[in-house]
Amino acid sequence: MRYILIAIVLMFVHASTAQDVSLALQQEPRMSEAQKKAQWAQFNGTIVSFANSNRRYAPDRLPAIPLRNSETLVAWKGEKVHTQLALWTGATVKAVISTGDLNGKSGAVIPKTNISSGFEGFVITDEFRNGCGYRKPQDFDSFLVADAIHFEKQSGIVLKNRVQPLWVSVQVPATAKAGSYEGWITVTAGKIYKLKLTVKVLDRVLPPPAEWKFNLDLWQHPAAIARVDKVPLWSEAHFARMRSYYTMLANAGQKCITASIVEEPWGHQTFDDYPSLIKWTRKKDASWRFDYSLFDRYIAFVMSTGIKERINCYSMVPWKVAFRYYDEQLGRDTVFTGKIGSDAYDAFWTPMLKDFTQHLKQKGWFGKTTIAMDERPMEAMQAVIRLLKGIDKDWKIALAGEYHAEIEKDIYDYCIASAHQFPDNILKEREQQGKLSTWYTCCTEKYPNGFTFSPPAEHVWIGWYTAAKNMNGYLRWAYNSWVEHPETDSRFRSWPAGDTYQVYPGPVSSIRFEKLIEGIQDFEKITVLRKAYAQQGATEKLNQLEAALKSFEIKKLEKQSAEEMVLSVKQLVNE
Amino acid sequence: MRYILIAIVLMFVHASTAQDVSLALQQEPRMSEAQKKAQWAQFNGTIVSFANSNRRYAPDRLPAIPLRNSETLVAWKGEKVHTQLALWTGATVKAVISTGDLNGKSGAVIPKTNISSGFEGFVITDEFRNGCGYRKPQDFDSFLVADAIHFEKQSGIVLKNRVQPLWVSVQVPATAKAGSYEGWITVTAGKIYKLKLTVKVLDRVLPPPAEWKFNLDLWQHPAAIARVDKVPLWSEAHFARMRSYYTMLANAGQKCITASIVEEPWGHQTFDDYPSLIKWTRKKDASWRFDYSLFDRYIAFVMSTGIKERINCYSMVPWKVAFRYYDEQLGRDTVFTGKIGSDAYDAFWTPMLKDFTQHLKQKGWFGKTTIAMDERPMEAMQAVIRLLKGIDKDWKIALAGEYHAEIEKDIYDYCIASAHQFPDNILKEREQQGKLSTWYTCCTEKYPNGFTFSPPAEHVWIGWYTAAKNMNGYLRWAYNSWVEHPETDSRFRSWPAGDTYQVYPGPVSSIRFEKLIEGIQDFEKITVLRKAYAQQGATEKLNQLEAALKSFEIKKLEKQSAEEMVLSVKQLVNE
Repeated sequence: MRYILIAIVLMFVHASTAQDVSLALQQEPRMSEAQKKAQWAQFNGTIVSFANSNRRYAPDRLPAIPLRNSETLVAWKGEKVHTQLALWTGATVKAVISTGDLNGKSGAVIPKTNISSGFEGFVITDEFRNGCGYRKPQDFDSFLVADAIHFEKQSGIVLKNRVQPLWVSVQVPATAKAGSYEGWITVTAGKIYKLKLTVKVLDRVLPPPAEWKFNLDLWQHPAAIARVDKVPLWSEAHFARMRSYYTMLANAGQKCITASIVEEPWGHQTFDDYPSLIKWTRKKDASWRFDYSLFDRYIAFVMSTGIKERINCYSMVPWKVAFRYYDEQLGRDTVFTGKIGSDAYDAFWTPMLKDFTQHLKQKGWFGKTTIAMDERPMEAMQAVIRLLKGIDKDWKIALAGEYHAEIEKDIYDYCIASAHQFPDNILKEREQQGKLSTWYTCCTEKYPNGFTFSPPAEHVWIGWYTAAKNMNGYLRWAYNSWVEHPETDSRFRSWPAGDTYQVYPGPVSSIRFEKLIEGIQDFEKITVLRKAYAQQGATEKLNQLEAALKSFEIKKLEKQSAEEMVLSVKQLVNE
Repeated sequence: MRYILIAIVLMFVHASTAQDVSLALQQEPRMSEAQKKAQWAQFNGTIVSFANSNRRYAPDRLPAIPLRNSETLVAWKGEKVHTQLALWTGATVKAVISTGDLNGKSGAVIPKTNISSGFEGFVITDEFRNGCGYRKPQDFDSFLVADAIHFEKQSGIVLKNRVQPLWVSVQVPATAKAGSYEGWITVTAGKIYKLKLTVKVLDRVLPPPAEWKFNLDLWQHPAAIARVDKVPLWSEAHFARMRSYYTMLANAGQKCITASIVEEPWGHQTFDDYPSLIKWTRKKDASWRFDYSLFDRYIAFVMSTGIKERINCYSMVPWKVAFRYYDEQLGRDTVFTGKIGSDAYDAFWTPMLKDFTQHLKQKGWFGKTTIAMDERPMEAMQAVIRLLKGIDKDWKIALAGEYHAEIEKDIYDYCIASAHQFPDNILKEREQQGKLSTWYTCCTEKYPNGFTFSPPAEHVWIGWYTAAKNMNGYLRWAYNSWVEHPETDSRFRSWPAGDTYQVYPGPVSSIRFEKLIEGIQDFEKITVLRKAYAQQGATEKLNQLEAALKSFEIKKLEKQSAEEMVLSVKQLVNE
């Protein structure tokens, strides 16, 4: 089965190269090759300047930006802040970026070990058009966009008439003294360019990611890591490689472990297989044996990386029911295809759920485990809820879909599509009951989103919107469901480019991932400030913040950029 | 001390960027930017062709090569063979290379898992000029050359008017049936290009690297691996990283472990520190304590990677005598600087050598350990030999330097500079006595050599020359003494570019390293054939081979290229 699917993917990959990649960036005004050529013809020398971290710079057109050799960032203690630089040259040069300590008053210092810098990488993206569904690359415009951030790469050749964006991150120690810190970013490229970086540290503390209130849920894909890192699935080497990817995700505030309790819970929608963590065997006497050894090893491992709040199990309700198990009587794999809600379906799931419930209680994990559903016809969802609650009334259920008043009370972790909203009273009620109310975007939404062509500020905007709507977090379905060549081409056989992953093999970070963290940090700062202002009775400040949050409505993004909206309110969390 | 040196290096790095890098390749005829531009102006579309693996293609000029979509390689069973492809395009494209099984007659197959392919990387090099000595980059021409082979990278963006070389290696199984195998290399780049690869497997078997007779000695630099891979020196993570680099070297036939028995055995001639594996402590009562714990751990580790024939210890005779040790009386590090051959020198070394001899015998390593010297005044070398033999007459000594009849008998592993030769009778004698007679090149020799600008075929030539001169092997002083940014710029503060390393961080292979392996394989094939022909009494064949070998004289490389010389005799080992 796998090979057939790969074959199909390869066909698409070939088709995808049936057109040449336009170097144009999704950026207005569009430019012809001739116009770009004319631009460069009039340009000499090399320029290094601070640039806007909310923009993606094209590799082949002169950035139309104000030249700046100094930059000031404002941060809380414990916050990670960033800036972007752009280097462009009329003659091929070797470029090297290096950073040093940031020095404050009276010996205070942010050591250079807290500063990361790296060359950005360009990847092929496409365009939104109608969003979901299969797509043939030749039917879409394609572009080269800067997205990957190679924090391991501080040097490179920049070819003549090319632009190289660079990224700099500063992790402010939680113990830093408040005040202004100054230092230099040095870029050698033909000449030595010294750019002054100032970080103003405010007298407020951002808690560490483990304590963040924001519920981030990017689904993990273990088999994809085995493939890109060329290690055998579930080998020691595989677990060693996964650790670096999952630690990076935990540091972004991830709370949920994506656990597959059946084979291909999403009908193999990704390039790589998605195997089950649990082995189902129907014995000769028609009773069942469930092997949890891999499930236990994997869950314990992911928890050890810092992702440990919840275990979301996928899926009792796949789009197409086809549960594979090994049948000892027949001596081969068999597939159950009974209709959700049917007696056969209940009979199929009841033994597993009873056994699984007992196992989870033994492990002490039952309380943090959910059975996760995607949007299904009401009667199907109700049938599954009935079945689960019948086996144990305490079973937690997660749902990602539309808002349904009929079942809301039964859903512990309710993640609604961005077009929907929770009624205010329901939100308050859920908050009091300790239920999670989050939202998601996927291939449906043109904005806000995290495609490789999405404006980076939309990921920051997501944090503000979550706070504005008094929700607990945000879900995106794929942290690392990589395409065949993720570093080169983020397009896939279906969905807008970049939909299937937020970071790159390595792990290598991305503009999208760093901006998502910025948005989550803003959410945490809003949460801290709301509480502080209320306690201090700083009503005016509180009202000012709430008024600003009121402006965060998705439909507004039709007319106003996420960048503009975020920048207009940013200072409210940086005073 | 380290920091001062790094500071110096950084100065050079900055200076090195004081000129822009010419994209010209050290290739005749040299071309102006205008000439290149004119070339591309007349070119459209994309071309993918087999190319000459003995050439380095420039990133910015149209390759002047015959277009070929089929290639035939001849190999022995167990041999690794390779070919190069070049892709160039007038419009930016996404390029992907993939390979499949090679199929022979009646179901015989070389599986695709034995075929590696990858994108090549360009690095800055300079020129030979006068070879050795410190050099300021601005005084030298600099060039971008293809050298790194990224076997982990099968896809990439190729920009408009650029050339991308690709490398393909085939590891023929030792168990393969003799015969012709055919398969396809597929490159997608705008269109799908299918190139036919044929491998003719001869009915001869090349032994595995562990059994190769060729004594390869590329010095290992453990601290450089810790730096580039950002792991703490001597940590578990460091040893885990070293394993991949050392296994790659063992697979090239490396026989010697480079062991530092003093701090900075070469006076910190490299970018990174070279720490001692043995800790020297002078106790309050003026007696000595030698801590071998790291030495033992490191040697056992390197042996476990397959490099286990010899342990070469550096160095009792550094260029500038300065042996650091900890003095408990003074409570600080101290440096001994006594003249080689002086009583003080003998008094300093005697306790260590006695203790070390005993330790090596306990470990069962004494028989494979040598004290390695570089060329020194005769009396100094004789003094060291006297000292060693006085402590144990069985001490083995290695010398890399000129040929000296006076001490030849005392040298177990004698590595002469390429300008020198062993007298025939001496060579035979040494062979009978099981002594090693090898040769080396370094910054002195314009050719044959392994700089990043050296013609790749010179590394093959080295194998043939070694066989021609009836020597046992070849030494180059640096496997991985990386410069600050090895992937970007192979130039260093001294010596011609690339002198300090043959492979890249990752580990990532190189054209140089693959060609060195080709030369060593040819040496092994010659060794097998000489023996076989002699046994079979195939005098004509033997004479033909020996006659061909006679032509391998270094001075010939003045007028004739290594490529021409190697190709003219290659078929003699591929019949």
